Amino acid sequence: MITRLSNFFLKTLREDPSDAEVASHKLLVRAGYIRRQAPGVFAWLPLGLRVKAKLEQIIREEMLAAGAHEVHFPAMLPREPYEATGRWEEYGDALFRLQDRHGADYLLAPTHEEAFTLMVKDIVSSYKDLPLTIFQIQDKYRDEARPRAGLLRGREFTMKDAYSFDASDEGLAQSYQKQRDAYERIFQRLGLEYVIVSADAGAMGGSRSEEFLLPTQIGEDTFVRSAGGYAANVEAYQSPVPAARSAEEIVGLPAPLVFDSPDTPTIDTLVAHTNAVLPREDGRAWEAADTLKCLVFAVTTVEGERSLAVVGVPGDRDADMKRVEVAFPGCEVEPATAEDFAAHPELVKGYIGPALVGPSGEITQVLGEAGTTGIRFLLDPRIVDGTAWVTGANAHEKHVAHLVVGRDFSADGVVDVATVRDGDPAPDGSGPVTLARGMEIGHVFQLGRKYAEALGLKVLDENGKLVTVTMGSYGIGVTRIMAILAELHHDDRGLVWPEAVAPFDVHLVATGKDQAVYEIAASLAATLDDVGAEVLYDDRPKVSPGVKFGDAELLGVPRVVVVGRDAADGFAEVWDRAAGTKEKVAIAEVPGLFGA
Amino acid sequence: MITRLSNFFLKTLREDPSDAEVASHKLLVRAGYIRRQAPGVFAWLPLGLRVKAKLEQIIREEMLAAGAHEVHFPAMLPREPYEATGRWEEYGDALFRLQDRHGADYLLAPTHEEAFTLMVKDIVSSYKDLPLTIFQIQDKYRDEARPRAGLLRGREFTMKDAYSFDASDEGLAQSYQKQRDAYERIFQRLGLEYVIVSADAGAMGGSRSEEFLLPTQIGEDTFVRSAGGYAANVEAYQSPVPAARSAEEIVGLPAPLVFDSPDTPTIDTLVAHTNAVLPREDGRAWEAADTLKCLVFAVTTVEGERSLAVVGVPGDRDADMKRVEVAFPGCEVEPATAEDFAAHPELVKGYIGPALVGPSGEITQVLGEAGTTGIRFLLDPRIVDGTAWVTGANAHEKHVAHLVVGRDFSADGVVDVATVRDGDPAPDGSGPVTLARGMEIGHVFQLGRKYAEALGLKVLDENGKLVTVTMGSYGIGVTRIMAILAELHHDDRGLVWPEAVAPFDVHLVATGKDQAVYEIAASLAATLDDVGAEVLYDDRPKVSPGVKFGDAELLGVPRVVVVGRDAADGFAEVWDRAAGTKEKVAIAEVPGLFGA
Repeated sequence: MITRLSNFFLKTLREDPSDAEVASHKLLVRAGYIRRQAPGVFAWLPLGLRVKAKLEQIIREEMLAAGAHEVHFPAMLPREPYEATGRWEEYGDALFRLQDRHGADYLLAPTHEEAFTLMVKDIVSSYKDLPLTIFQIQDKYRDEARPRAGLLRGREFTMKDAYSFDASDEGLAQSYQKQRDAYERIFQRLGLEYVIVSADAGAMGGSRSEEFLLPTQIGEDTFVRSAGGYAANVEAYQSPVPAARSAEEIVGLPAPLVFDSPDTPTIDTLVAHTNAVLPREDGRAWEAADTLKCLVFAVTTVEGERSLAVVGVPGDRDADMKRVEVAFPGCEVEPATAEDFAAHPELVKGYIGPALVGPSGEITQVLGEAGTTGIRFLLDPRIVDGTAWVTGANAHEKHVAHLVVGRDFSADGVVDVATVRDGDPAPDGSGPVTLARGMEIGHVFQLGRKYAEALGLKVLDENGKLVTVTMGSYGIGVTRIMAILAELHHDDRGLVWPEAVAPFDVHLVATGKDQAVYEIAASLAATLDDVGAEVLYDDRPKVSPGVKFGDAELLGVPRVVVVGRDAADGFAEVWDRAAGTKEKVAIAEVPGLFGA
Repeated sequence: MITRLSNFFLKTLREDPSDAEVASHKLLVRAGYIRRQAPGVFAWLPLGLRVKAKLEQIIREEMLAAGAHEVHFPAMLPREPYEATGRWEEYGDALFRLQDRHGADYLLAPTHEEAFTLMVKDIVSSYKDLPLTIFQIQDKYRDEARPRAGLLRGREFTMKDAYSFDASDEGLAQSYQKQRDAYERIFQRLGLEYVIVSADAGAMGGSRSEEFLLPTQIGEDTFVRSAGGYAANVEAYQSPVPAARSAEEIVGLPAPLVFDSPDTPTIDTLVAHTNAVLPREDGRAWEAADTLKCLVFAVTTVEGERSLAVVGVPGDRDADMKRVEVAFPGCEVEPATAEDFAAHPELVKGYIGPALVGPSGEITQVLGEAGTTGIRFLLDPRIVDGTAWVTGANAHEKHVAHLVVGRDFSADGVVDVATVRDGDPAPDGSGPVTLARGMEIGHVFQLGRKYAEALGLKVLDENGKLVTVTMGSYGIGVTRIMAILAELHHDDRGLVWPEAVAPFDVHLVATGKDQAVYEIAASLAATLDDVGAEVLYDDRPKVSPGVKFGDAELLGVPRVVVVGRDAADGFAEVWDRAAGTKEKVAIAEVPGLFGA
């Protein structure tokens, strides 16, 4: 079937939509692929629907090839299963909730773990029915606070979500690997470069988890990788823990020494001041890494309880708020506010430290459950027993040096939230890491038994014993991938689709007012259609060549064929949008460029 | 791709689900096509998804062939456009409403007139861009009070909804005809018998409207048709209006006569009593059709205001509540309750009539705006000026005869809500009608300018003048049609799909424990796959032939091929599920039954 632009539901725009911030959003609206319905909610025009359908089909084919079965769940689901797993509450404001006419609670599902678990519970009863992987391609909802990136992160979005079910951990590992392999094939077919990084489990709960990240400077995720093969989302990076000093070694360390430290608002000024007033015996200069920085956070639980937590990190690092979020699962964390400090006058801002050193050297712990304040106190994993630090002395304009962990103070626990830097060691010993930015394009996840336990999904094993099923979940954002492809493949004139998902194979443009040209073009369109090419034919009689060319470049069909002045001589011009080349080709040879 | 039952996400059930009342619901659940998620909300298993996809593809092909463009809208839409057209309120409890985290109102769309209108307003500006018809196949929501019929009427359901846009009434008529023709082709391809009946506009507002009804005794709709070609939904039937008597003719009619009428609780007893005490001069007996029955309804508006309305109908008819609903658009109507009568003692129950006749013949109108009660009073269209009636005298155990319309009383208006009967005249003069029952399978609808006016959709006409666009809307319930096909095509052993939508072309069953049989069957499956047949292969090694045959009959693939004992001799058995035949066929000839 040939699509004629003279009769196509399309309007291209010259101006970027005012609410669009990213290139994919601007171009998909301007080129007539999508239209905004509400913040983060889009309608699909015929062009957009064609690209989306091709993308879905590629994903579907690879899922089926990996042995997964396609199903389809409603977007609107009852509350109870999500209540049973705790997600009804955990999702917070991101969940769209509603009631029916009888007052029963429903949600618009952001993911479908619960529903899939219950369906498998309904249908499967024996280990012989496993392994099983089922998937759907379906519209999901998430009430993003500020949905500003078009399809990159909408409030309604299409996802392929798959779930695997196994009777054993080994089975889960295999099912996981199959999906992981399928993801590699999908991204290869789409021409998407990817790095597979270890990822934190985050709000989903569970164990092993990897993200497929597209390396790109404009990515919203940061990841680290080593030359030796380590790769992890920065949230999942685990700092190697140095060896602690033994109790015997600690005995020989210098005693704490309190010193005046006026005008030291920053770590740099503190370090300079300490070097000036307290030169070290061995001549080495004090460095930022010798100081212990005590950061105060306010942590609010799902139930709304707000409390303070002090996190000690080496002074040459800060807290990475993304890593902080992961370290306090289910809580909202922010730096303590002026009000928080006002409510806790025992925290001397700018001079906070774990302990107070009295005039005759007696030490009183201030922070932590063991301290006078009782405020939760957590330490970076590098701050091990026997390490000595310059830190706040809990008095205005006073710091203390030689304060030793495990001798002078202790912490309530360890928290790995400090910033990660180029050169930090990979935790697997594969060398130093470098930082890079990426965009998440897929996520594979060993959920384990969390959902099966909450919803009672058990099967009989070989011995006739009931065992809880272990699950995996595997997601690709279809509409998000479409936006990412648009981000990657465009230039200043418009979109440049990869062939695998292009709305048409060829954009045929007839120019001028000569009826004979249109007849030649129509005949070429028919021949192209015959050889199986999907043809968009710009047959608009009263539109100038400039407008037609502009539309062709904006729409982004990979190859444009222009039939114009040279048509009478039997020639057309063939453009390769990606390469930027234009070539004179005999019209008779054009179908050969597209046919099977 | 061959689908093997040994590795397929399917579980058939022996028992009907407890909440299922209709055959399609029972069988689609038992055969593993769908699973309940909430009342009227279903998930789709692989088998169901296959049938649904085929149905959608048939509809899509015919829409595209009719020149319609496919788009896709979100289910969740903002309130404002629905507020502008009044539907946010009008839909009442049937609309799922929700709020986002910022408190903005949204709905889950039951139909998309508003969204389509706004999209066309965004894209189209001139009459040259019209006519235009766009459609989507999409999941919709309606909060049915008692969703008990499975997919026949769910709360989430898939619809094909198309909308046409024209600059003129003639254009609309043509666009409407194109969709109407496409519907005929769709139903022909699906093998669905249909009658096209005039339909009431109902809550949608607008002008011309037709329903495609499948004639069936189990249908929920009643329609009438004449041998001369008239066909209408019973709600849309318009009673022909007899000629009224002139004022001169009325002069000669007998004066009203009040008479005692004890023990006349029904029209029959009233007629018998009247014949006994008041024989007519011309000897004709009084009949039920000579009496005027005053029915009292309580009418509640969208705003919640409840008031009474009395409807006078010939005593040989009752009110048809479906016709009543249509006559009071946007209101809830029910027979007046005991409380209503208690609040209106001026209505003498059992003896209600339009007027009171005094001892010396003076007449006081009781009902209607002109009457002493002021209660709204409406008459059946057959009760024209100059007709004389036996009716209540507004006093206990009293009736009145010879009460003449236009002389002794008048009404506030006409309302055509009386029951329609076999033999009633078709309004177009094409003869008497007969009643039949049917199921709605499609609806085509001239919306007119209601939505375009409410949302400001105008285009420039040939003269550069802005004109409001006129619209049509065209709906087919995809999931409903699937249920209807299951209702039509099943027997006591299971489903019997028509080929056009069957989940597979052939259900191949290997029986017994002989490995050679399974090898022959697998080879046949491969050959069938090669010739393009979609094969479901029951290769389960440990399942008895009885269970396999039962599953094959339940699943309803139109042709079953059994490879068993005779396989070694080169023979299989081919079942035609619909015909109920079983035939011995050489295995070598089986592929020929399915190939192109």
